[in-house]
Amino acid sequence: MQTSMKITRKENYEPKELNLHETLFCSANGYIGIRGTLEEGVPEHFPTMRGQYLAGAYEIIPMKQAESLCNLVEKKQTMLNICDTQTIRLTVNGQEIDPFSCKVTDAERVLDMGEGYTERLTHYSLSSGGQLAVRIRRMAHFAIKELFTIEYEIEAIDFTGEAVFDSWHTPEVANYSDPDDPRLADESPCYLTRQELAYKGSMSYSVTKTKESGVVIAAATEHIIAADDKAESMIREEGGSLITRIRIPLRKGRKVTLLKYAAFSDSIREKEPRQKVTGLLSRVTVISIKQLYDEQKAYLSKFWERSRMSIDGDKELEDAVCFNMYQLLCAAPRDPHSGMAAKGLSGEGYEGHFFWDTEMYVVPFFILTDPALAKNILAYRYSTLPAARENAALVGHKKGALYPWRTITGVECSGYFPSGTAAYHINGAISYAVISYHQATGDDEFLLTMGLEMLIETARLWLDTGVYDRKGRFNIFEVTGPDEYTCMVNNNYYTNASAAYNLRCAADLYEKYRDRTEVIKLTKDLGITDLEIDAMKKAADAMYLPYDEDYGINPQDDAFLDKPVWDLASTPKEDFPLLLHYHPLHLYRYQVCKQADTVLAHFLFPDLASRETMEKSFRYYEKITTHDSSLSTCVFSMTASMLGLHDEALSYFGDSAKLDLLNRHENTKDGVHTANMGGCYMAIVNGFAGLRIRKDGLHISPFLPKGLRSYSFPFSYMGRKLKLSVDEDKAVMELTEGEGCAFKFFDKEEMIGKEKPWTHGL
Amino acid sequence: MQTSMKITRKENYEPKELNLHETLFCSANGYIGIRGTLEEGVPEHFPTMRGQYLAGAYEIIPMKQAESLCNLVEKKQTMLNICDTQTIRLTVNGQEIDPFSCKVTDAERVLDMGEGYTERLTHYSLSSGGQLAVRIRRMAHFAIKELFTIEYEIEAIDFTGEAVFDSWHTPEVANYSDPDDPRLADESPCYLTRQELAYKGSMSYSVTKTKESGVVIAAATEHIIAADDKAESMIREEGGSLITRIRIPLRKGRKVTLLKYAAFSDSIREKEPRQKVTGLLSRVTVISIKQLYDEQKAYLSKFWERSRMSIDGDKELEDAVCFNMYQLLCAAPRDPHSGMAAKGLSGEGYEGHFFWDTEMYVVPFFILTDPALAKNILAYRYSTLPAARENAALVGHKKGALYPWRTITGVECSGYFPSGTAAYHINGAISYAVISYHQATGDDEFLLTMGLEMLIETARLWLDTGVYDRKGRFNIFEVTGPDEYTCMVNNNYYTNASAAYNLRCAADLYEKYRDRTEVIKLTKDLGITDLEIDAMKKAADAMYLPYDEDYGINPQDDAFLDKPVWDLASTPKEDFPLLLHYHPLHLYRYQVCKQADTVLAHFLFPDLASRETMEKSFRYYEKITTHDSSLSTCVFSMTASMLGLHDEALSYFGDSAKLDLLNRHENTKDGVHTANMGGCYMAIVNGFAGLRIRKDGLHISPFLPKGLRSYSFPFSYMGRKLKLSVDEDKAVMELTEGEGCAFKFFDKEEMIGKEKPWTHGL
Repeated sequence: MQTSMKITRKENYEPKELNLHETLFCSANGYIGIRGTLEEGVPEHFPTMRGQYLAGAYEIIPMKQAESLCNLVEKKQTMLNICDTQTIRLTVNGQEIDPFSCKVTDAERVLDMGEGYTERLTHYSLSSGGQLAVRIRRMAHFAIKELFTIEYEIEAIDFTGEAVFDSWHTPEVANYSDPDDPRLADESPCYLTRQELAYKGSMSYSVTKTKESGVVIAAATEHIIAADDKAESMIREEGGSLITRIRIPLRKGRKVTLLKYAAFSDSIREKEPRQKVTGLLSRVTVISIKQLYDEQKAYLSKFWERSRMSIDGDKELEDAVCFNMYQLLCAAPRDPHSGMAAKGLSGEGYEGHFFWDTEMYVVPFFILTDPALAKNILAYRYSTLPAARENAALVGHKKGALYPWRTITGVECSGYFPSGTAAYHINGAISYAVISYHQATGDDEFLLTMGLEMLIETARLWLDTGVYDRKGRFNIFEVTGPDEYTCMVNNNYYTNASAAYNLRCAADLYEKYRDRTEVIKLTKDLGITDLEIDAMKKAADAMYLPYDEDYGINPQDDAFLDKPVWDLASTPKEDFPLLLHYHPLHLYRYQVCKQADTVLAHFLFPDLASRETMEKSFRYYEKITTHDSSLSTCVFSMTASMLGLHDEALSYFGDSAKLDLLNRHENTKDGVHTANMGGCYMAIVNGFAGLRIRKDGLHISPFLPKGLRSYSFPFSYMGRKLKLSVDEDKAVMELTEGEGCAFKFFDKEEMIGKEKPWTHGL
Repeated sequence: MQTSMKITRKENYEPKELNLHETLFCSANGYIGIRGTLEEGVPEHFPTMRGQYLAGAYEIIPMKQAESLCNLVEKKQTMLNICDTQTIRLTVNGQEIDPFSCKVTDAERVLDMGEGYTERLTHYSLSSGGQLAVRIRRMAHFAIKELFTIEYEIEAIDFTGEAVFDSWHTPEVANYSDPDDPRLADESPCYLTRQELAYKGSMSYSVTKTKESGVVIAAATEHIIAADDKAESMIREEGGSLITRIRIPLRKGRKVTLLKYAAFSDSIREKEPRQKVTGLLSRVTVISIKQLYDEQKAYLSKFWERSRMSIDGDKELEDAVCFNMYQLLCAAPRDPHSGMAAKGLSGEGYEGHFFWDTEMYVVPFFILTDPALAKNILAYRYSTLPAARENAALVGHKKGALYPWRTITGVECSGYFPSGTAAYHINGAISYAVISYHQATGDDEFLLTMGLEMLIETARLWLDTGVYDRKGRFNIFEVTGPDEYTCMVNNNYYTNASAAYNLRCAADLYEKYRDRTEVIKLTKDLGITDLEIDAMKKAADAMYLPYDEDYGINPQDDAFLDKPVWDLASTPKEDFPLLLHYHPLHLYRYQVCKQADTVLAHFLFPDLASRETMEKSFRYYEKITTHDSSLSTCVFSMTASMLGLHDEALSYFGDSAKLDLLNRHENTKDGVHTANMGGCYMAIVNGFAGLRIRKDGLHISPFLPKGLRSYSFPFSYMGRKLKLSVDEDKAVMELTEGEGCAFKFFDKEEMIGKEKPWTHGL
């Protein structure tokens, strides 16, 4: 691992940029997420999403349907903005220190991905003429997931005087809202009601509770001063907040440091959240901060060892890819009490909901770098299987489970069912992830205690949904594929292909493991019959996969190709993304795709179509896809790689790795695009390197994209650790841990052993 | 006309029945609608929709979408419940007179359709032992549309004493709501704010205004006493109401009558609504009530002369048909300021919205009996053409007008666009009605000043919506036909057939009248080009009308026949209507129809399919149609008649004429089903009698349904009055007014002159 893995940005305190930096310099550890808002706050008119989140902590709010049809969802869950412990106001010699009223001579932000902290370095020139240096380091601790620290260091470079810190603890805060953007909540009262707000010694603590979900959040803060002189400290309550005021003398050229520890807990995970946070802070504050930093670094050191990607020839790309991996690590749940949100824990976009994105775009990354985290995500889905069964029943299914399109606890939260509940491919994504995880890890225990049940129940849903037509083909009607620019279509190629895979794998794995105790019990519990397993196999075999003779492509759905092609060339730039500028009924009438749909199916299920059909389809869909979704270009890149279209693979890859760093979609302020981050990883690993783990084992078919000198990455496969390096001339595979194994290099059987790296010319 | 045309019902004061009677004994005249609620009110726990309505008077209320997609409707209009002037409380010798606290020995309700009033006759046995007879007659005056009268007559049969009337005038009232039924509003604040509430002499008046729509409602009441003794009267204000208290001695065996006049006006029609109502009452109260009753009777006498249907052999059916006609007369707007609501003015079902039902099911009745009323309805649609253009633009159309699925002022008010805005066939219904009206009346003036513009603009919408497929067929994608159990389908047979007719007639009529001054102006104003007219003809010719070779039927849409057939036989009775018990996504996946769809298309456009296809289709669809809509069975009956399936025609006709009288759908409490009422008329006239007016003139092909001895009805045709009588042996046509004309009797050219009736054996 390189020692310096930093993202550094100048800070100009420009409102929009600040809002973006709140996301980019968020501190998160898979449990807590604290946006990189300024301790001192921003002027009132500045857009800011001042947020602190806990994975899976939610409130239930009404979501009235404009027309109440039967069994439509009329409530939704929303991620909570919890207790604000970030706020620290500083006064030096009577002058309030903030970049909006003071002169800033230099300011930058740093994210250190090797050390696991963010930092703000600000240099002020005070009205008295004095120079003040401020360094604020924040850390969401990876090993102690409830812990967040702020190290607030100031240095009076050329003067003496007094600093006064007001450090806040505000339990009741409101969520963010933007009524003009359907991807954000449109109203935001404060969902938390204070149960307790108190202090004991210098430790403050609060307990809040939501009204509907009954989730209890506890928070505690503690302060430690490191300075030459003794500080005075007192706590007061003001307007529902506890404020710790610390007065401390400033000496010229000397540093003074305020360490603020905050701990958070919730009733989803803990019986006594308050005891959890106060106990934790009591223990943690006696450890030196250095020790906490060292632990953080050690945690990351292992993470990078398992995942660090080297890209020689494009340092910016390498940094961006590492940034993405780091963000995924920050976003991934550390226990099965929560799934992973579309924006991770970095913002309130999509209200903290979990979508198919996680399974389809992020789980593949964790499968190859940290299978335990992948397992958490899948275990969370397993825990919501009962809710998925209820969801299926609501839609009228007699059997099976239908995972919700968007959710926090497993209950459907999509308000517009034609592009929500109707997106049955969520079942496809989850089952695909279960199968992939098992194929890459061989984790039979997971398969037998969780995975198989999920596969059987999702497969049952397809059986209950589909129907044989007069030609004996198995049809799936009225579903919505990944491309939401048409909804409730018949025989969406992607959905049908996913369903076939789900059905076949459920049946095959069931038959393979049917004699295992767990499966015998499952058979009894779920009433699985041979007839049913046969029906799964039959449906998989008979699955209708639309093919158009004229064009030689797979149409996205039965009616897709008959519709007129949207005139993208004449569509004004400001009309994108189309969904924000056109009535859905209008969108639905055209051949226009928001994102990869059939092209994704071809990447996932290449055996279902000929190479020619896939290439023709690729060429066809690339002309009509807007990539309005951040989930799209990476898939086009992967499929291009698979088809050997190397220029296209590189061109679609483009700077998608930098989507958030460069704010390409202009909405990174609402949170990072985790799916795109995972997708970029896939575009390199599954795309450029052609790494696939299938039923028959590991495959690679690497190439070196133009402009790069080499790239390499470590990965896990069936318990072993491998590393693949690709340069202009050759591919090299090393086995760094575990036993040797066979793999396929462009369909050629190869072996890798511990003795020496495997090398092959390109 | 027969002198006695009465509907009489015993009144048991059973809550559900009372609620039903509120609808059945509603007083309406096309402008005001006053439900048959009890003057004295009902106990608090009784379900009651205490309503007074004015045609087209509305408020705008929020209709938030659960997910705000682009250009979705987020506000809706709702019919106002206006000022309550019905309330009259009576005390006799200190005892409050109402059926819930007094002993009722006899009670009945009467609707006199010849005289135009409703009446409640109640006989009380008082706690003092006295016998009290109460007769309350209500009239919404047909000639003076703002006027509503209550004649409250009491007779102290065997005692003397004193009666005290408290007569209320309450300007601010709330609308009805039922959160459990999607067909009703789910919340109901009071939409009216009082501007004025005052009295002058014995006349009380009020002015109220809505907050959003700014509609002003004025009401006034005046009281006149007819009694042997002088009454004392005073007005007081109490809790926002004006209460006129009248004390009057009661003599044994003598009648005392309180006449309460109420007048209503609104700012949609009048500049000074308050002056309108006070002035009107000043004038009206000097006329004797007898004269007002005589005028009412005279008005109805003319109405029945034009429309009265005689059915020999089924008195109940005859009464029901007359009841329906009467209700349609009560519901039809008297000016173009309002359309006609699905429930007329008889209740708040569907929030007073206007749908396609009016044009497709009710306009045909008025075309044949009172073309001026048909013209009002169409003129209202013409006045909303600008709103329809805006609606089209919202959905993304570059040209044309899309009439809203449900509306009051012409603005779309449907909250769920897949079965609202997507029901483009509303354009088909309106254009069909325009064409039918013109074909039956020859009213060129209407066509040239309104109708043609509507036809061109609706036709333009089809041109902008449809698209030629690879086979050169004109397709219409993503629309919803009349059967809402599938939504957003491709090539709905009904919609495509309607669109073709709309396109062809628009082009033909344009070409026929293109040299007329109005059309020359229209051409310029709308920028109509020959190219466009040619495109209309081409699209009409190329319109794709799905046909299935295997079944020999017209499928409802492209995908319909591939779906599984819903198992109606095994569906529990309590699951109907299905839309209240199954998630839409579930419904959409099956072959199951809420109502006639393709079968209606065959009736309207019989030239588009062979007789064999139509009969096979009829047989096919009858097996999968639930008739959950009241618009369905009448169409099956008509189409059966057309196909010569006389038994089926009669069986589908069934007692649908009695749907409201027998409360068959159990929701007549929310208002009458005007479309079904019109549909029953059509089932007899267009069905049994086979009367059709087409481009080539008048057609009849009558038969006498089993069980009837004869039936006859008058009708208007091109300014003349005709009467058709059908019995077992023969059909007889009489010309009662106007010039002789040709017509077709089962495709045979015939003539009818003034000299003698035309007779033909059957």
